[in-house]
Amino acid sequence: MAAIEASKSSTPLLKDELDIVIPTIRNLDFLEMWRPFFQPYHLIIVQDGDPSKKINVPEGFDYELYNRNDINKILGPKASCISFKDSACRCFGYMVSKKKYIFTIDDDCFVAKDPTGKEINALEQHIKNLLSPSTPFFFNTLYDPYRDGADFVRGYPFSLREGVPTAVSHGLWLNIPDYDAPTQLVKPRERNTRYVDAVMTIPKGTLFPMCGMNLGFNRELIGPAMYFGLMGDGQPIGRYDDMWAGWCTKVICDHMGLGIKTGLPYIWHSKASNPFVNLKKEYKGIYWQEELIPFFQSVTLPKDCTTVQKCYLELAKQVKAKLGKVDEYFNKLADAMVTWIEAWDELNPSTVLANGSTK
Amino acid sequence: MAAIEASKSSTPLLKDELDIVIPTIRNLDFLEMWRPFFQPYHLIIVQDGDPSKKINVPEGFDYELYNRNDINKILGPKASCISFKDSACRCFGYMVSKKKYIFTIDDDCFVAKDPTGKEINALEQHIKNLLSPSTPFFFNTLYDPYRDGADFVRGYPFSLREGVPTAVSHGLWLNIPDYDAPTQLVKPRERNTRYVDAVMTIPKGTLFPMCGMNLGFNRELIGPAMYFGLMGDGQPIGRYDDMWAGWCTKVICDHMGLGIKTGLPYIWHSKASNPFVNLKKEYKGIYWQEELIPFFQSVTLPKDCTTVQKCYLELAKQVKAKLGKVDEYFNKLADAMVTWIEAWDELNPSTVLANGSTK
Repeated sequence: MAAIEASKSSTPLLKDELDIVIPTIRNLDFLEMWRPFFQPYHLIIVQDGDPSKKINVPEGFDYELYNRNDINKILGPKASCISFKDSACRCFGYMVSKKKYIFTIDDDCFVAKDPTGKEINALEQHIKNLLSPSTPFFFNTLYDPYRDGADFVRGYPFSLREGVPTAVSHGLWLNIPDYDAPTQLVKPRERNTRYVDAVMTIPKGTLFPMCGMNLGFNRELIGPAMYFGLMGDGQPIGRYDDMWAGWCTKVICDHMGLGIKTGLPYIWHSKASNPFVNLKKEYKGIYWQEELIPFFQSVTLPKDCTTVQKCYLELAKQVKAKLGKVDEYFNKLADAMVTWIEAWDELNPSTVLANGSTK
Repeated sequence: MAAIEASKSSTPLLKDELDIVIPTIRNLDFLEMWRPFFQPYHLIIVQDGDPSKKINVPEGFDYELYNRNDINKILGPKASCISFKDSACRCFGYMVSKKKYIFTIDDDCFVAKDPTGKEINALEQHIKNLLSPSTPFFFNTLYDPYRDGADFVRGYPFSLREGVPTAVSHGLWLNIPDYDAPTQLVKPRERNTRYVDAVMTIPKGTLFPMCGMNLGFNRELIGPAMYFGLMGDGQPIGRYDDMWAGWCTKVICDHMGLGIKTGLPYIWHSKASNPFVNLKKEYKGIYWQEELIPFFQSVTLPKDCTTVQKCYLELAKQVKAKLGKVDEYFNKLADAMVTWIEAWDELNPSTVLANGSTK
């Protein structure tokens, strides 16, 4: 099947339909390297930490910037659902966007090169992933069947070859891999040098660790599930923001018949964060997770959950009922999940979606 | 985690614990190219078609060869479960082997080269895959976490990092991809040129199209499920032998807590088979498959199925009960599945398995 030939078109793909969301506490010099790829797009910068600090954005980029004061002003009391002093704050950017697609990237991520030495346009690959279908119901051994030079292999049921809409495109990282603190401590010198030239759908019923460093998604299809939870300032854990969003999103995509792709594109992750600091943020997550995964593996959403919002509110209810006993934190998180949806709906008044349902 | 350093050891890995099974109708000149990799191992050649034909095997290889007369003599009336005039006959080789591991390869498959131009020792990679664990319960975004330079990423539950034993290693093909007849007809010139440097576990609960062209497995763990069905001479379908084996095997591996890996190694598949002939063999399979997949997706095996044999007999029962109405062929196939297990047990008298159970 024909791939989307983005590179051959003169206008960048989805130029007016995609926002790039960047959470940061520092000047955005990293954008210089991304200029050829990002400059045509609109940026939403979510400034974390001290709101009086001035963040420099390189000239020529089209952006809006929100600091904590802005978030408080826009959301009022509902701002409590947006984390502070943690990159989880990025999800505020998803909420204020008015576009159909989001690409989010960390400010320590640079342009990677493919094995031929060519600079990788990560955004373009995410868009290709998002615009081609996913295949969650059956595994294709030659990976994404919609890529040029690939297809469904012998034995792949024909009734499943149309695929389903892709909601999420999860990109990877060369150089510093996305390891947890214990692995960082044990393997301080490990670098990811393996360029795996593949995109694949994560099968239905299978959970994965979604990393927020290099992530694209269809906001119309799955936006309200992309809540990055309560992390950082005043919270007992950190570094589980994207994981939480990933587990919720996967369960909801499976229920709604949507797909999640992982693999290409790679970005160059420049610097490992401090493993000692990370351990402090993660350690509760590391053992709570042993109860969270069975929870998400067994969650079922009732048939009348026909929108992402309904699914998400149902999930919040089950989080409270089943994880509240793991730690009081999950009661607070479940409440924040509800607040998040209320805030989302306030900023995104009901519109008819592509699939005919209303948000 | 440390990978198995096969290339550094002087004796080939598993030299006395692995048989190479090759189904063929022609002289085995293709072995010349494989000599550096295969010569240390024992070959089991299953000669298909006219038993009076003499198959030449290049000098220096250690082999045993079975033609149809041998199969009939060894199995007696149970030989009816072994297909004739179809490469499905290869599974006879699995049955007569006395080794722990099997590697099976087609005689039109040659040594492929990796992107650096180095010849790929496919067998060594299969052994690495089989000797390192699988991770069917949770997806690792950096692929096989047991490979050198890789590990489990942040958010991967620690309780699942031990993995489970790997039962099957499914390798891929450069040059001619393993397409069905309709895809061959539509894309006569498509070649697989993409070398994807990855091995991964197929998640629990997900079916895949297993190709028998380049396949390794642990005979002790899963051998009795590797029945390639009734194909070819006197049967209404062909080219679904490996698919059938793959679906049965996957369902049983999921039940038994065993893993299946796919990806590396690649072999060079030299020649596309005739798509018109293939279409004739496949066409019933193409529509039957639409009922087979939902069947295998929903099969559950009772808890008292604690051996592969018990699982397989239970599966045969369910095939008869649920697929017999699709076509009379499935009643015959279900009977053949039972015969296969009887023949297997006859040739492989009860021994204590690694996991403590008896076969």
